[in-house]
Amino acid sequence: MKQTMKAVVYKEKGVVQLEDRPVPVIQEAEDAIIRVTRSSICSSDLHIKHGSVPRAKENTILGHEFVGVVEEVGSGVKHFQKGDRVSVNVETFCGTCFFCRQGYVNNCEKGGWELGCRIDGGQAEYVRVPMADQGLTKIPDDVSDEAALFNGDILATGYWAASIAELKPADTVVVLGAGPTGLCTLMSIRLYSPAKVIVVDISDDRLALAEEKGLADITINSLKVNAEEEILRLTGGRGADRVFEVAGGKETFQLAWKAARPNAIVVLVALYEEAQSLPLHMMYGKNLTFKTGGVDANSCEDIMKMVQNGKIDTSCLITHRAPLNDVMEGYRIFENKLDGVIKWVITPYEDRD
Amino acid sequence: MKQTMKAVVYKEKGVVQLEDRPVPVIQEAEDAIIRVTRSSICSSDLHIKHGSVPRAKENTILGHEFVGVVEEVGSGVKHFQKGDRVSVNVETFCGTCFFCRQGYVNNCEKGGWELGCRIDGGQAEYVRVPMADQGLTKIPDDVSDEAALFNGDILATGYWAASIAELKPADTVVVLGAGPTGLCTLMSIRLYSPAKVIVVDISDDRLALAEEKGLADITINSLKVNAEEEILRLTGGRGADRVFEVAGGKETFQLAWKAARPNAIVVLVALYEEAQSLPLHMMYGKNLTFKTGGVDANSCEDIMKMVQNGKIDTSCLITHRAPLNDVMEGYRIFENKLDGVIKWVITPYEDRD
Amino acid sequence: MKQTMKAVVYKEKGVVQLEDRPVPVIQEAEDAIIRVTRSSICSSDLHIKHGSVPRAKENTILGHEFVGVVEEVGSGVKHFQKGDRVSVNVETFCGTCFFCRQGYVNNCEKGGWELGCRIDGGQAEYVRVPMADQGLTKIPDDVSDEAALFNGDILATGYWAASIAELKPADTVVVLGAGPTGLCTLMSIRLYSPAKVIVVDISDDRLALAEEKGLADITINSLKVNAEEEILRLTGGRGADRVFEVAGGKETFQLAWKAARPNAIVVLVALYEEAQSLPLHMMYGKNLTFKTGGVDANSCEDIMKMVQNGKIDTSCLITHRAPLNDVMEGYRIFENKLDGVIKWVITPYEDRD
Amino acid sequence: MKQTMKAVVYKEKGVVQLEDRPVPVIQEAEDAIIRVTRSSICSSDLHIKHGSVPRAKENTILGHEFVGVVEEVGSGVKHFQKGDRVSVNVETFCGTCFFCRQGYVNNCEKGGWELGCRIDGGQAEYVRVPMADQGLTKIPDDVSDEAALFNGDILATGYWAASIAELKPADTVVVLGAGPTGLCTLMSIRLYSPAKVIVVDISDDRLALAEEKGLADITINSLKVNAEEEILRLTGGRGADRVFEVAGGKETFQLAWKAARPNAIVVLVALYEEAQSLPLHMMYGKNLTFKTGGVDANSCEDIMKMVQNGKIDTSCLITHRAPLNDVMEGYRIFENKLDGVIKWVITPYEDRD
Repeated sequence: MKQTMKAVVYKEKGVVQLEDRPVPVIQEAEDAIIRVTRSSICSSDLHIKHGSVPRAKENTILGHEFVGVVEEVGSGVKHFQKGDRVSVNVETFCGTCFFCRQGYVNNCEKGGWELGCRIDGGQAEYVRVPMADQGLTKIPDDVSDEAALFNGDILATGYWAASIAELKPADTVVVLGAGPTGLCTLMSIRLYSPAKVIVVDISDDRLALAEEKGLADITINSLKVNAEEEILRLTGGRGADRVFEVAGGKETFQLAWKAARPNAIVVLVALYEEAQSLPLHMMYGKNLTFKTGGVDANSCEDIMKMVQNGKIDTSCLITHRAPLNDVMEGYRIFENKLDGVIKWVITPYEDRD
Repeated sequence: MKQTMKAVVYKEKGVVQLEDRPVPVIQEAEDAIIRVTRSSICSSDLHIKHGSVPRAKENTILGHEFVGVVEEVGSGVKHFQKGDRVSVNVETFCGTCFFCRQGYVNNCEKGGWELGCRIDGGQAEYVRVPMADQGLTKIPDDVSDEAALFNGDILATGYWAASIAELKPADTVVVLGAGPTGLCTLMSIRLYSPAKVIVVDISDDRLALAEEKGLADITINSLKVNAEEEILRLTGGRGADRVFEVAGGKETFQLAWKAARPNAIVVLVALYEEAQSLPLHMMYGKNLTFKTGGVDANSCEDIMKMVQNGKIDTSCLITHRAPLNDVMEGYRIFENKLDGVIKWVITPYEDRD
Repeated sequence: MKQTMKAVVYKEKGVVQLEDRPVPVIQEAEDAIIRVTRSSICSSDLHIKHGSVPRAKENTILGHEFVGVVEEVGSGVKHFQKGDRVSVNVETFCGTCFFCRQGYVNNCEKGGWELGCRIDGGQAEYVRVPMADQGLTKIPDDVSDEAALFNGDILATGYWAASIAELKPADTVVVLGAGPTGLCTLMSIRLYSPAKVIVVDISDDRLALAEEKGLADITINSLKVNAEEEILRLTGGRGADRVFEVAGGKETFQLAWKAARPNAIVVLVALYEEAQSLPLHMMYGKNLTFKTGGVDANSCEDIMKMVQNGKIDTSCLITHRAPLNDVMEGYRIFENKLDGVIKWVITPYEDRD
Repeated sequence: MKQTMKAVVYKEKGVVQLEDRPVPVIQEAEDAIIRVTRSSICSSDLHIKHGSVPRAKENTILGHEFVGVVEEVGSGVKHFQKGDRVSVNVETFCGTCFFCRQGYVNNCEKGGWELGCRIDGGQAEYVRVPMADQGLTKIPDDVSDEAALFNGDILATGYWAASIAELKPADTVVVLGAGPTGLCTLMSIRLYSPAKVIVVDISDDRLALAEEKGLADITINSLKVNAEEEILRLTGGRGADRVFEVAGGKETFQLAWKAARPNAIVVLVALYEEAQSLPLHMMYGKNLTFKTGGVDANSCEDIMKMVQNGKIDTSCLITHRAPLNDVMEGYRIFENKLDGVIKWVITPYEDRD
């Protein structure tokens, strides 16, 4: 194994660059070192770049959505060994603290979202994964690395969002936002067979994709149509049984509660950059439940099963693919939503002498 | 039965007065006419007076918390008859629509909060109760009218709030607000035996009452102590498992989510008069669930059981008691929180010739 | 409307025959008279014939699974009118009693399974349906009578069984019995996208059908293979997460708990004809939950939605179809499982002069 | 620390005796050695003696309900250290396997009920507790050893039984059996404030104790009264909302489902010695849920909180107390239910030279 490697580093607010970094080594007995075979750029990376993720630390290697091969494990790692192909969980967690025991791994007393945020992440050639027995999931032989790439983050998010929404067949569901996480949420929602799924976005391309992949029964481009009125019309004036807000904007936040029928569950999956106005007096008696926050990635084994049996297939998300050498171009395209990008996938660094 | 009666009428924003009104008569087959034996003044009556309840109609008799005796029933009333002593549900509901079938009686397609808001209520000598089979609950012989007075509104609210909070023994619970509804919420919370109950208010008297009645393990006067810091200290830095916001203010709203531990349930029972700021970016990853709104009074029979067997006793709420003749004095005292008032109870009109 | 009609009557234990009967008339304000357009023979009809349904009454017209057109409604029927196409609920219920309010319509204090059991049912030209507002479901224009035929009974049963099983994606599910109700259960289970569905039966034809229709991932003919061992093998020795017993035999009952992993939910949907042995000492520590009984048909509107949107399609169940004239031949074939019969559908009586 | 100690050993079916045994030592890094300060005799010890616990191994030291002081910990124990006062969990579990992650610690892939059954238990001077971080609970300073003695087994059982019963205020609950586990179940049921608790036993003394301690609203001696009829009478003919079977007999098993109202939950906590007859055809349509099995002791920290705050007080269970020297006399008295024994508590061995 070589000594140095290439890595995407968050230097300071506004500055992300590709650098040489030392290859990581085992520090704790529960650590594993992973050779990264695929990673991706996530909108949370942009949030970090913009300085709007308070817990993020400067000088950290970015990347929290990746898969790879185990290169080495510490003496305390029980379930993995060198050579295992693995997907990596966005969250680092102990599995035994108060929060972990209830499945709230995002609030693990010893972890949470660490990789690519507070400790070095996976937009690199190698990465150290702490508490590897909890943080890794084996990729079965009949699942490709790329097929499992999103399991640990955006698919985990969509899967979690669907799982906390108490979905029932016969529900009418509204999803606000058909970006990468929105699409993963839709794929997960489909597992519960709601009677009608309405998707709202401002991109005709993304809406068309959602429809083509069977993820949307009805699509609404909210630039062209009054989405609130249209949703009410489509639900006979009642509103939707479940609403997922995956867009994170001021308008979509307001639309979320307005599109919901009384006693609906509104799942706020998005990462907002500012406070929202909650007009409780205007929704009094509507008795809404809001479930807020970021993924508890506690179901990665289950997700892998659903990828393996083909009930979830994220391949349509991958619009771009290039080696780590070209990652800064990837950031430019992803950040500016150019060229129809949904997901930019990073393949291993290539020697280009 | 006489032809006219005394009644408290909401005339227009700011104006409430005692008037002569015709005694109500059966209009629909499902109606019942009730002779009111006890009613009370509720803070929602003040909200109506202040013009901040959009659904309220001018010229309506106020009063949505009362008990009485059935004087007459329509031909379609199956479960009640003349002479029955009954408590009246704040909500008027059909029991069979989409929402009612799920217990969301507050959103009944034919009703909701009607009495004392959109149709004539119970601060009067008589009142017409529509869909009486759903709207009334029999008072057992061994329960006094006064013991059942709050069942249909503030006790129903507290009982509902506790029931949707998914309480477990061993939880630490914070209740913000020890007014009448706060106290009823506390009484209901106690049925689930949480390990520790912390009550926050700005009145030492109310806090003392909560403690004396065994409803609070710990009390915090937030005028004297930094409540957020104190709650964190009392919970080892973690925050409370469940938070009930029954105060309805700007500060208490913010305190509600700050006092909550990650993945807590925050029940917003209060009726707010304006929009609140929801700083989702500051609570990101805390993964809170907010349950909002007004009572679904779907458990009045159960509540009556708990009053009958003594597990709930609201007698400590009654600080004042006077005939309907003096109700305007009651409004003055209740609105201005004078004289240690918690609840002003209205007894029948007296002929004072 | 004519005065007499043809009807299949349960005369006494062992005797069922086609007879002339008076056309029913409205008796109560909540009644509706339905002209039957399709009905079916159900294995419960055979249970009645065999004398093993204690609540059944002699001299009753059989038939509890049927659809038709409203001919007349009583003055108290609010949601239906002459000409409406409707499917009929196996259960007759009030919607407002203690049990109905909790969705336990099978235990309605005024009803339960009445039609074709204790009061005249739908294997006839006309039928009187009491409490019609609860007992009927409108068939949308784009759904045929036949597509909705099973909604009220065997599909309701399968839908209910799936709904009480707390299914999750990633579950491995075992279904014992691929007869009509087993297949409807499978169709309903599919709505929850369990990772793996294993179906056990003794008929290769039925297993092939389940596989062909995408209802089974794996099939086991328990005449040819040791089903218990095979299920354990397929689940890595752990057992299934959920088991549905839809066969009703002594062996299948024992297989149900043996095939279940520790802490599984075992749903016993079948109608057993005798007591079963429950070896609690042998399953001690396995901590199984058994959910027993007969359908609470409280979701017929939801089921109709799923039929309408095509997520449930029962057309493959219909192997035979003939007019009421030939119904006794239908009983012979259905009872003896001849000619590959799954469901025998009864079309209207034909004048064959 | 000395080399040998006294211990109660299960030699073979029918034979239990006090012997000299080597003091245990650390074997695995996760082990702790506990000096036992209080232990008890449990009816499961008798089941082992009778040879009716298949998993039990001959030549094992008995005792699975005990508290003590940590003498030594292995290098992998993180949360405990020498000198800690602890209660010991009846179950030995890893906390991270498939079952543990769902709280099903009784089915831990590496443990379950081990102590005093398959590995040496606590009716001894010292005991080795594997996976001590999961298996121990700290006793707070203000809780005595004796007050925490039952936390890990019979109180854990009662607490678990109550927690899986989906209890609500206003429920009517029947408990069959007022022995030690029945009493602990009652103490735990009380935390949910059911409206009415009916206790059935054949001992007037135990029934009187239940009543005196506020655990029973109504008691029935089933030797003197027809318990089924009496329960139906007390519930207006409907049956109980929840039934707990803690007696384990043939009659009580049948009474359990007969005493239950339709759609009730029946919790079968008892350890039966033989198969029971489940007459599903006689309860068809009653739609009962049976929850079966042995404790998942996953709430010991919560239980300790409830003991500490006084909401659970098991002191009334202790009728006898003697040093380990006299334990065989304890077995004789406990097995034959002599002298009003409820629990025989074993104090440390005494040098009686």
